[in-house]
Amino acid sequence: MSNCTVLFQPDGRKVRVAAGTDLRRAAALAGIELKSACGGEGTCGSCVVKVLRGRYAILGGKSRQKQGLVLACRTAVLGDLEVEVPALSRLEEHRVLLEELAANATLAEREFDSLERHGFHPVVHKTLAVLDPPTLTENASDLTRLLTRFRPEDGRPTPAIGLRAMRQLPLAVREGGWRVTATVADVGGKEEILRLEPGSSRRPAYGLAIDIGTTSCVVNLVDMRSGLVIDRRGAFNRQARYGDDVITRIIHATEQPEGLQQLNRAVLDTLNDLVDRLLLANDLRADDLTVAKVAGNTTMAHLFLSVPPDHIRREPYIPAAVSFPVLRAGELGLTMNKAAPVFTFPAVASYVGGDIVAGVLVTGMAQGEEVTLFIDIGTNGEIVLGNRDWLVACACSAGPCFEGGGITCGMRATPGAVERIEVEPGGREVRVRTVGGLPPAGICGSGLVDAMAALYEAQVIDRVGNFRDLDSPRLRGGPDGPEFVLAEGPEREIVLTGADLKNLIRAKGAVYAGIRSLLAAVQLPEDAIARVFVAGGFGNYLNLRDAVRVGMLPDLDPSRYHFVGNSSVKGARLALLSRRAWAEADRLARQMTYLELSASRSYMEEFVSALFLPHTDLSLFPSVTEQEVSACP
Amino acid sequence: MSNCTVLFQPDGRKVRVAAGTDLRRAAALAGIELKSACGGEGTCGSCVVKVLRGRYAILGGKSRQKQGLVLACRTAVLGDLEVEVPALSRLEEHRVLLEELAANATLAEREFDSLERHGFHPVVHKTLAVLDPPTLTENASDLTRLLTRFRPEDGRPTPAIGLRAMRQLPLAVREGGWRVTATVADVGGKEEILRLEPGSSRRPAYGLAIDIGTTSCVVNLVDMRSGLVIDRRGAFNRQARYGDDVITRIIHATEQPEGLQQLNRAVLDTLNDLVDRLLLANDLRADDLTVAKVAGNTTMAHLFLSVPPDHIRREPYIPAAVSFPVLRAGELGLTMNKAAPVFTFPAVASYVGGDIVAGVLVTGMAQGEEVTLFIDIGTNGEIVLGNRDWLVACACSAGPCFEGGGITCGMRATPGAVERIEVEPGGREVRVRTVGGLPPAGICGSGLVDAMAALYEAQVIDRVGNFRDLDSPRLRGGPDGPEFVLAEGPEREIVLTGADLKNLIRAKGAVYAGIRSLLAAVQLPEDAIARVFVAGGFGNYLNLRDAVRVGMLPDLDPSRYHFVGNSSVKGARLALLSRRAWAEADRLARQMTYLELSASRSYMEEFVSALFLPHTDLSLFPSVTEQEVSACP
Repeated sequence: MSNCTVLFQPDGRKVRVAAGTDLRRAAALAGIELKSACGGEGTCGSCVVKVLRGRYAILGGKSRQKQGLVLACRTAVLGDLEVEVPALSRLEEHRVLLEELAANATLAEREFDSLERHGFHPVVHKTLAVLDPPTLTENASDLTRLLTRFRPEDGRPTPAIGLRAMRQLPLAVREGGWRVTATVADVGGKEEILRLEPGSSRRPAYGLAIDIGTTSCVVNLVDMRSGLVIDRRGAFNRQARYGDDVITRIIHATEQPEGLQQLNRAVLDTLNDLVDRLLLANDLRADDLTVAKVAGNTTMAHLFLSVPPDHIRREPYIPAAVSFPVLRAGELGLTMNKAAPVFTFPAVASYVGGDIVAGVLVTGMAQGEEVTLFIDIGTNGEIVLGNRDWLVACACSAGPCFEGGGITCGMRATPGAVERIEVEPGGREVRVRTVGGLPPAGICGSGLVDAMAALYEAQVIDRVGNFRDLDSPRLRGGPDGPEFVLAEGPEREIVLTGADLKNLIRAKGAVYAGIRSLLAAVQLPEDAIARVFVAGGFGNYLNLRDAVRVGMLPDLDPSRYHFVGNSSVKGARLALLSRRAWAEADRLARQMTYLELSASRSYMEEFVSALFLPHTDLSLFPSVTEQEVSACP
Repeated sequence: MSNCTVLFQPDGRKVRVAAGTDLRRAAALAGIELKSACGGEGTCGSCVVKVLRGRYAILGGKSRQKQGLVLACRTAVLGDLEVEVPALSRLEEHRVLLEELAANATLAEREFDSLERHGFHPVVHKTLAVLDPPTLTENASDLTRLLTRFRPEDGRPTPAIGLRAMRQLPLAVREGGWRVTATVADVGGKEEILRLEPGSSRRPAYGLAIDIGTTSCVVNLVDMRSGLVIDRRGAFNRQARYGDDVITRIIHATEQPEGLQQLNRAVLDTLNDLVDRLLLANDLRADDLTVAKVAGNTTMAHLFLSVPPDHIRREPYIPAAVSFPVLRAGELGLTMNKAAPVFTFPAVASYVGGDIVAGVLVTGMAQGEEVTLFIDIGTNGEIVLGNRDWLVACACSAGPCFEGGGITCGMRATPGAVERIEVEPGGREVRVRTVGGLPPAGICGSGLVDAMAALYEAQVIDRVGNFRDLDSPRLRGGPDGPEFVLAEGPEREIVLTGADLKNLIRAKGAVYAGIRSLLAAVQLPEDAIARVFVAGGFGNYLNLRDAVRVGMLPDLDPSRYHFVGNSSVKGARLALLSRRAWAEADRLARQMTYLELSASRSYMEEFVSALFLPHTDLSLFPSVTEQEVSACP
């Protein structure tokens, strides 16, 4: 009995629900995810929304109610409602965008350098064509008349014309008094008129830089004339309902009827929602969006294009493709001008995708002489090593624990997640900090690395991750063996178990072994690494000192480390603005030598050696060892 | 109350109708037009169908009923029925295809010559690729692996791949044991893999050659390996419901809301029906059809692509375009492989379209030295004069009378149409022959030219088309002045009025004046014309001697005349089989000098001089004058 209509603003989204449904659920049905640290208990206060009009009831428990401000989770719909959702209450906007923005200072400069180097030559531009009106003797067709305005000698190569633009042509030229604004795009090695507007259009052309992450998606709205990002939106990838990581999604795509279509639909829904919000906020129409560059890992690219990904996960790990045709938004189902070309970044291999290529592109690491390490740690750690002369890449399966998966109290880095931990020697006292300062609800990736380092430093655990025999009320027997209580949450105690620690050590060991394998392949020592770019959401929040202390990252001078945040979306933006940068991405993807670690015996050896804190070979971590010595006199 | 389902075979089309509906109407609702000369009176016997199962009743009047054979117009549906419609009873198949086939003997040879000259290089072909299976060390993507099989040095340039083929790729290569058959097409200057089939596919690729006429459409199914037409279908263009000629359709497209969409839909429905029948009869699927070349006049091309045609009919008569992008069947809505490229023939101007370019192409007139006249007479007469060094073209508005429009008893050349007439001197006796030998129902274009010539020769009319003062019971006063009774039909008398004759003289005069104008433009006498190719449906049935006698066509030796039938669809087929022929079509369209007659004073003078039988200047028609002299001593 869905008899109440709830209209969410400023999204303008409507949903019909039964009376009695709570507003948090209604919002979720409308595709709006609200923050919620308390799980709908009305305690965390993060899902505040404002009722603009309509009937509702406050469910039992305390609740604010000034000027229609209510907690969505504690508000029941009683009739048709109009509700405003503040940006601060939206889950998706929170971390997803922060991740992109966090490293802006570092990356903006590099991005600017890259754009300078490759040259500003946007993939799409608008141009005014002034035509002579036809007569009985000068009776060339409208199209012929238009195309003569593009003179190769003026640097305007004659473009082709798309069907939609041709349909607009007769009216546009006459309405504009034989002045017409053409939107011309590179559609993959040739120019095409995508759109015609009567007269002289003052509005710029717009492009989308899109990052499709396994966990979250980001869309930047780019003014193609100035090159500026004029707005951006981010959200969790809705594919998550079919599995947290790429492997479970590939299995879903392969083994469920319609599975591939579901995953394709989910990512398109995610992106189209973000685009809808960008259009609404910036008073644009879908037709104004005339190009997109999309970066994502290889599996994400397959699912975005609805190409079967099955063999990515099966030995010998072969993707259907690592380079993708330029497609039109209309055939893909993206909310844009239907004729808009959509470019998908080329990948290197099944587990080194277009997101990494975009990152390598925008950091400019393939331009200089300095040997640079690029590392993006998520479920998989993708690692690239090299300089302008050579590039080697690999992927190491870190497992889902840095994303909060497979860990007893693991969670994503959303409000309430423990992200910083200090442990007193002996493990009696523990101080934690959570995302958003909310009561602790779980522990996220950066918190786990912190915890591992802190517990080791406080001598709560030994070098292989086993709990020492301690007299601390926090160390106790749990259902699966010993566990350590990090914090008391409103709903549960936040613990780390012995199994959690083993998982974490395997994960950090996998990353470090990957780095070692690349170095071994090119026969360079660690110290040859002049710069390290740490990309990705997890990278942003990682405590660098902790990551070195546990032996995940090499023990280099901290000044060599640079956090670059979401370099994938930045690379996509660069490729929108510079055709030479796009060509360079193609070259990079082909040039990178991919090391398949699953086939490598030396990787296994490196991995086994890395299953210690920080490592079997302490000489590899001199600064850690020094600290240890000084800490334990 | 549509409670009966009628299933028509072999089309497999179903329609729901109320009990009591006659089968002719039911067939029409199912999109199947039956022959009907008697207008549903049960007398002509041309709408025979076979009831395979179900309940029906024979309406009053005589009717065959052996083995379920009934007249559709006299059979009422009483329950669910299954009915087989023989090809002979189908209206659309009748003339439409005959037109194409009639001139085959003449054209087949020319077509063969053209193909020889341009070279057999089909737009699409299938090729087997045998791949090495991947390993952990040879782990290139499926696409990379496939594309390495196309080596430019073996004459197989590396193609791009379409989205649909990429989606088929991972399964196809594995199902085929790393052998896969790729369908590769020219998609407009570059090669693209459109489709992948596992293993070695023995079936050829198929293409469609399509002629979109204002009156009727023809589709040829072409085996792209052998080049043979393996089947063909034809039907009247369903746009006819919105107007008989291009002008009324352009007005409909412009002035009715959704008018353009309706016309676009109508022609697509017409074509898709033909394609469905071809697929059914040849046991093919839509995916098997991987390329189409489409020829039609400029208005038809605009409506096919849903491009606004308004300014084609407004001075200065400017089409939106005369060359058209290569599109995909999916975006157009044609029943084919969605990725199939659809090429639309380039036009010359608003009233000299791609059908004429296709005709000029296939006749090879632009290859030799001989000065050749190409003429296609329908509602408009399109005329091209030239040889390999130069081509001039024009269109003259003959009006609808050669299609049976605007004439008191005019009709299309369907069964029952008077097509041949002999008149005794003085007009007392008249003998007529009808299409299909059925009782006369009206008079078609070739009958009208015949009538004009016969009435003039029998001295029933004078040189300007006025009735002479005769004592014949056939000449009588009608509602609009004098009229002549040609025949008694079962429903009405078939008459020609004074106004009809004026219309006819204007129409024939327009054609002749067009020819004269082209000759004048290049300053050549009539006798310089070494060959005349007469194309189009009307041309096929035209009595050449009559056409000369009334002064429509030049008085040249009959051996110089050649009927070429539907040269448009033949040109389309040629362009499917030879890429150089397609390039040549493009060159021809650009090369033809278009004379806009509406701007020409000399055309008006020629036209006025041609409003006599055969002409003001009798010296232009020596053979006619001789006959006349010998006939009237």
